[in-house]
Amino acid sequence: MTAPVLRSKHRAFEGEVGFYSHASSEIGGEMRFSVFVPPQAAERPVPVLVYLAGLTCTEETFMTKAGALGHAAEFGLMLVAPDTSPRDRRYPGDDASWDFGLGAGFYLDATAAPWRDGYRMHAYVTRELPELIGRHFPARRSAMGIFGHSMGGHGALVAALRNPGLYRSVSAFAPIAAPSQCPWGQKAFGNYLGPDQAAWAEWDATALVEQGARCPELLIDQGEADQFLARELHPHLLEAACKAGGQPLTLRRHAGYDHGYYFISSFIADHIRHHAGTLNRG
Amino acid sequence: MTAPVLRSKHRAFEGEVGFYSHASSEIGGEMRFSVFVPPQAAERPVPVLVYLAGLTCTEETFMTKAGALGHAAEFGLMLVAPDTSPRDRRYPGDDASWDFGLGAGFYLDATAAPWRDGYRMHAYVTRELPELIGRHFPARRSAMGIFGHSMGGHGALVAALRNPGLYRSVSAFAPIAAPSQCPWGQKAFGNYLGPDQAAWAEWDATALVEQGARCPELLIDQGEADQFLARELHPHLLEAACKAGGQPLTLRRHAGYDHGYYFISSFIADHIRHHAGTLNRG
Repeated sequence: MTAPVLRSKHRAFEGEVGFYSHASSEIGGEMRFSVFVPPQAAERPVPVLVYLAGLTCTEETFMTKAGALGHAAEFGLMLVAPDTSPRDRRYPGDDASWDFGLGAGFYLDATAAPWRDGYRMHAYVTRELPELIGRHFPARRSAMGIFGHSMGGHGALVAALRNPGLYRSVSAFAPIAAPSQCPWGQKAFGNYLGPDQAAWAEWDATALVEQGARCPELLIDQGEADQFLARELHPHLLEAACKAGGQPLTLRRHAGYDHGYYFISSFIADHIRHHAGTLNRG
Repeated sequence: MTAPVLRSKHRAFEGEVGFYSHASSEIGGEMRFSVFVPPQAAERPVPVLVYLAGLTCTEETFMTKAGALGHAAEFGLMLVAPDTSPRDRRYPGDDASWDFGLGAGFYLDATAAPWRDGYRMHAYVTRELPELIGRHFPARRSAMGIFGHSMGGHGALVAALRNPGLYRSVSAFAPIAAPSQCPWGQKAFGNYLGPDQAAWAEWDATALVEQGARCPELLIDQGEADQFLARELHPHLLEAACKAGGQPLTLRRHAGYDHGYYFISSFIADHIRHHAGTLNRG
């Protein structure tokens, strides 16, 4: 595993945010990610909170727009935000649309050609990236949480549901809660996983809960003026699955809020506090 | 005065951030600005805090990157952020460089041709925009503060120094503190004001203080790892002028911080508190 290369860094809230690239074996090419190291890391290893961004975003979006750094500095959490897809090695048609391919890896491991060669964002996020962070940053790897937004909110749910014990805390902003049942998800799954919808259930948070997968108590925030709510997000399907299966879920619906980072920044403090409450315990 | 046209709006921190355009008489064309209305404005008119952004920025930069909205919501301040130059009517050469013309209005009223026709950002910011805000938003116009960053930090200082009594509170992040004495300022002033350097002093914060202009107590934050500090910013010249003239100034130098919005967001809470302490009084 080659060491990450620092591309730029900035002091922030008495800690430091850095932007890195490295050669990823899962992805088969360069990947980029960002890390906020809080001031507490000068004294001791700190918990790691991974953020997965949504369609069209990069490793910069969260650090720039979410307003999270001050809260992470307060609670002593390291923030890690990977890019949203492979970009180094290119695939035919990967830039044909904004909701598939580049910037739209959906945090799964593709099984259909040609995507299966490098669209392995789940393996990258849940295995390779934490190992890299553990080796090169002052991280307490035994205390890891995950959250995200939209495509990345769903990616966080699936990462937790498929890997019991790996994450101590999970939350999401406006996740694509049942991708098998919405146009974004059907397009992505059909291409990355092929037409057999039985295989999709392994990568669909609502289906996973229905099949008995469990994860730590979920916090989900959803704006009621979200322009994608009715067509793409379907939080009520996940809510029903959690209720039927006894998966703890706090789903908060907020009048007037839309799908963007003004919504995320309005509730980011609650999410950081949700994760810190678990990650900073023992 | 025509009413502003809403281009987009987003609920944030139980308030709302909106992006507007309007026909400006000072600028002679369309201008854009953003406004964050805090939740308290539902009950009563609220103080107005104007933010002037730096080179290459737009009316979006501050609302997106500074992490200010949550603090403004806490203290009940309206935030107003104009664009950084005229953009509607074009001038020959206005896009030839990133530090002059488009995105670089320097918040002065140009006196040299052709710029004097519409590069009237000082008149726009200090007169036309506050009048527009007072007419169309729930603003308590008698309680107005101003701050900004870099070119806009200097613009805030000059706006306050040239208009005694207009602003109750002033602060700046990494201002171009003595533009007559740095390359950015010399280029801008030479073009906007002409070669006679005697005329520049009216638009230079350090020179204004030296000439006896005064404003409310200044709070200035400056990163010591700022890549523009030595060549362009010269806070020590303003500091010396304030000391000699008895202008109250708190200048804080922060080890390791650079010129960007990670720096600004790290100290934005202190600035909002500085302004709120004065603006929310009586």
